[in-house]
Amino acid sequence: MSGMRVDAPIRLEAAMSAMMEAIDRQFDQLLTLPEDQRARLYEAMRHASIGGGKRLRPLLVKASCDLFNVGWDSAIRAGLAVECIHVYSLIHDDLPAMDNDDMRRGKPTVHKAYDEATAILAGDCLHDLAYAILVDERTHADPFARIELVKALALASGPAGMAGGQMMDLAAETMSFDLPMVTRMQQLKTGALIAFCVEAGAILARVPEENRVGLRDYAHDLGLAFQIADDLLDVEGDAAVTGKAVGKDAAAGKATFVSLMGVEQARAQAEMLVSQAKDHLHGFGDEAELLRDIADFAIRRSH
Amino acid sequence: MSGMRVDAPIRLEAAMSAMMEAIDRQFDQLLTLPEDQRARLYEAMRHASIGGGKRLRPLLVKASCDLFNVGWDSAIRAGLAVECIHVYSLIHDDLPAMDNDDMRRGKPTVHKAYDEATAILAGDCLHDLAYAILVDERTHADPFARIELVKALALASGPAGMAGGQMMDLAAETMSFDLPMVTRMQQLKTGALIAFCVEAGAILARVPEENRVGLRDYAHDLGLAFQIADDLLDVEGDAAVTGKAVGKDAAAGKATFVSLMGVEQARAQAEMLVSQAKDHLHGFGDEAELLRDIADFAIRRSH
Repeated sequence: MSGMRVDAPIRLEAAMSAMMEAIDRQFDQLLTLPEDQRARLYEAMRHASIGGGKRLRPLLVKASCDLFNVGWDSAIRAGLAVECIHVYSLIHDDLPAMDNDDMRRGKPTVHKAYDEATAILAGDCLHDLAYAILVDERTHADPFARIELVKALALASGPAGMAGGQMMDLAAETMSFDLPMVTRMQQLKTGALIAFCVEAGAILARVPEENRVGLRDYAHDLGLAFQIADDLLDVEGDAAVTGKAVGKDAAAGKATFVSLMGVEQARAQAEMLVSQAKDHLHGFGDEAELLRDIADFAIRRSH
Repeated sequence: MSGMRVDAPIRLEAAMSAMMEAIDRQFDQLLTLPEDQRARLYEAMRHASIGGGKRLRPLLVKASCDLFNVGWDSAIRAGLAVECIHVYSLIHDDLPAMDNDDMRRGKPTVHKAYDEATAILAGDCLHDLAYAILVDERTHADPFARIELVKALALASGPAGMAGGQMMDLAAETMSFDLPMVTRMQQLKTGALIAFCVEAGAILARVPEENRVGLRDYAHDLGLAFQIADDLLDVEGDAAVTGKAVGKDAAAGKATFVSLMGVEQARAQAEMLVSQAKDHLHGFGDEAELLRDIADFAIRRSH
């Protein structure tokens, strides 16, 4: 972990705690229980969205907003929208027909705590809420900024992004993937949403596209580093710490970065990517500290 | 069917055919198969979205656009977005964990023709595409119009609209609903999206909210009339004509307008609502013909 600043872990932990609190509070306000038969639906959305996860995506949005002096209110709302998409995707991916997971973030998955129909609808509703949050004028006064956020999020989460990647991941259970295929799959499945987060600050600050190249390169490398680290955790992790089942990919015979490269090479590759990601931020000064801290975190986290 | 204009059925049939062709063409262009493992996902989306349905929602959008001289391109894109939401909801509602339907629009449902995981993802992707279509500048040059469309669609399809109504519908299987509860459930489940369609023309024309009261009242009455007619078809319809199973609500012991009011009163109520819906259009002239034709169609359709 060469190049990591000594105070980075403490600084990141503080930023992460603040974000976890803020996102929980936002979800709590957003998901007030209605006094009718939809209460169970809202309870399921609360179960999935409150009190869990590292909130890394909202933190990336905040880190990206730091670069361009975008205020907290805009950052938190854009971060909340991404987290709605992330949580919706976890609910659907955990379903019996998909990854069939019983545990998530140390709690029963939504279809286990409630039922499958409620889980499908809770995911669908969080999906809509993401867009409702982005178009609200509280996210940004300029309609063009909101439009661009919606455009970018729809691209990142739909068939050309996250959901398309999940489809490729399902295909990986029955056909053998090589390294370029796994890379492409992960770029869609997790990379696209991470890239949205990293670009969100630039969108909110109305930074022209041509000035976002460094950010995009950072997001590309960070996304892959995170996924390699995830694959390493699946092999070496502890279910009690990660809060979900481990060893699943190997059991399913699915190709991963680790199965294709081996543990040692995968770890070296992740470290190289993190170093490279930080290099892409060379045009920025202290305002990019949080983005650098998050990159370091990608390879030293335990869950 | 008093008050129906003699040439209405022919005129409506022509408008409906044109819309069916146009929406099929739009979906065909939108869903070009990618040359990777996502092809199956796109095939599933095509299976669900091309060559089926009356396209009543896009037709309502077009009818609403007629009132305010909104052009065909805007109308068709807003209509396509609503149809994406409608089709996504059909895919998810048909799943085994929800209504468990094998047939839809005379074809196997997506999870039958493909599999459950693909069906969930195909629905999720169409959900994103709806928003991607609306925010594209081809839908409207004015960003405020696009923002308002996204805002209204997210409200109509999420927990305070369609998906919330579907949750109430699931609750109706295990608790007894009275007429106000069934009415409220249907207003969310099908009424909210219909109301969006009827208001879309006004949004695209930037008509102030206070001048949309008649349209909202029309949409309210039309939505209920359609649902009562749907319940009547479920009792009296022919599976070969409706393209889906009939008698399901009665078999499930679920309260419907028909079970609560009886066939005769339900039919009278639907006719009253249609007449009332048309009355709300009194401020409009010939430009409201299509909206009037659709209202008449609500109670004379066989599927």
